[in-house]
Amino acid sequence: MLVFIGLGLHGEGMSLQGMQAAKGADALYAELYTSLVPELDLKELERKIGKPIQVVDRKTVEEQPDEILKAAKTNKVAFLVPGDPMVATTHVDLRLRAAKTGIETKVVHAASIASAAAGLAGLQNYKFGRTATVPFPDNPSQTPYEVLVENRGQEIHTLLLLDIRAEEGRAMTANEAIEIMLELEKKLQKNVFTQNTLAVVVARAGSDDALVKADKVEMLQKLNFGSQPHVLIVPGKLHFMEIEALRVFAGAPEDVVK
Amino acid sequence: MLVFIGLGLHGEGMSLQGMQAAKGADALYAELYTSLVPELDLKELERKIGKPIQVVDRKTVEEQPDEILKAAKTNKVAFLVPGDPMVATTHVDLRLRAAKTGIETKVVHAASIASAAAGLAGLQNYKFGRTATVPFPDNPSQTPYEVLVENRGQEIHTLLLLDIRAEEGRAMTANEAIEIMLELEKKLQKNVFTQNTLAVVVARAGSDDALVKADKVEMLQKLNFGSQPHVLIVPGKLHFMEIEALRVFAGAPEDVVK
Repeated sequence: MLVFIGLGLHGEGMSLQGMQAAKGADALYAELYTSLVPELDLKELERKIGKPIQVVDRKTVEEQPDEILKAAKTNKVAFLVPGDPMVATTHVDLRLRAAKTGIETKVVHAASIASAAAGLAGLQNYKFGRTATVPFPDNPSQTPYEVLVENRGQEIHTLLLLDIRAEEGRAMTANEAIEIMLELEKKLQKNVFTQNTLAVVVARAGSDDALVKADKVEMLQKLNFGSQPHVLIVPGKLHFMEIEALRVFAGAPEDVVK
Repeated sequence: MLVFIGLGLHGEGMSLQGMQAAKGADALYAELYTSLVPELDLKELERKIGKPIQVVDRKTVEEQPDEILKAAKTNKVAFLVPGDPMVATTHVDLRLRAAKTGIETKVVHAASIASAAAGLAGLQNYKFGRTATVPFPDNPSQTPYEVLVENRGQEIHTLLLLDIRAEEGRAMTANEAIEIMLELEKKLQKNVFTQNTLAVVVARAGSDDALVKADKVEMLQKLNFGSQPHVLIVPGKLHFMEIEALRVFAGAPEDVVK
């Protein structure tokens, strides 16, 4: 059996149900390349679970999951993943491979950045359109900009996730993402992401020092949001309660959100 | 201090971090009207936390939260909520009221139906458009249908949450939601939700007997998905891995997803 257990957004973001499943597993694996988990202390987690955790890299999960699958064929294997399992395609792929070889699979859910970031900013979930990821410039894509254009056209909010390359020890900052989006604006000129656009940076969502800041892009660019993970939200039309929330919880200047 | 702690999607869906915060609270309140939490045993939860939990109704939270706020002014108060906190507007409102009276607030995240339902069906999160709620017929709304039209126009997936009236002991079934959507189709005729439309029912996401079933609406209509909560997903254009996932994890007939 292969149980996917979400680590959520914090070192202790795993659910009580997840901890039970982890304790009941014969072997534990973890991948930490699809997202960063703030305040995650693997040694501490191993102590809590009472078993060692083997961290596997992207190549192992995506190309050579044989060891994991072989173990899951005869034993109860737990696979720990950042956030909520199955959000990353690579986990769906692994789950499919398991199912196809007759291995029973199970998913134990945990917090995901999508609802967490929206909630911390006080923005209403049902007013978010498609989410997109801003890739590093060496792997450029217009998609995040195009998704923003689509959503702005419907006056709804856009969550932009930021690229991460755990194997290279790189995770994009909100400042880098802003630069990339401004470049796309220069190129595609739809006037949806300019220096004057209201945006919200959510840093370390789920951690004890989570930070939420709303302001014009030109102001956000000048700030340092501390360690990653960061995400960027570009709001659409704001409800009065959302405006209030951005002022109270994200320090949005009075004149910027109205 | 007022700490909002997500209960997630399961009786043991609260995070380890949430349990710590709950144990450290002087008083605990819970609301269970914004969503159903499968396998939630309050007595068992009280035992785990080691403190009593006072369940409050919608009226108390939305109109008379004075008791909660008064307690939070001088003590550490935990407010337990289904799913991920702040997804329901009512929680943002309460958090704003607290902040305005100088009460420090904190959010401990947990699993939300949005990422869980998509993940269980093997559908890619970034391909979901706006989410909408299907209200009971005595409070009709065209919004879920209109949101579906928007999303289908972009060939992206739509998550439909189903109305709940905890105070009346009512929670909508997928079958009822299908009937309501078919009525809206009859009325608005955009050909986005017919007997032949592929849809996915996710029942009891997060619970040990979660059920995921994909088929044409006319077939889903005939099935019994067991106890609520249920949600409905209307997929847009499917990636090959999504097609495979719907077949393997949602029992979609070969000829229906291709």
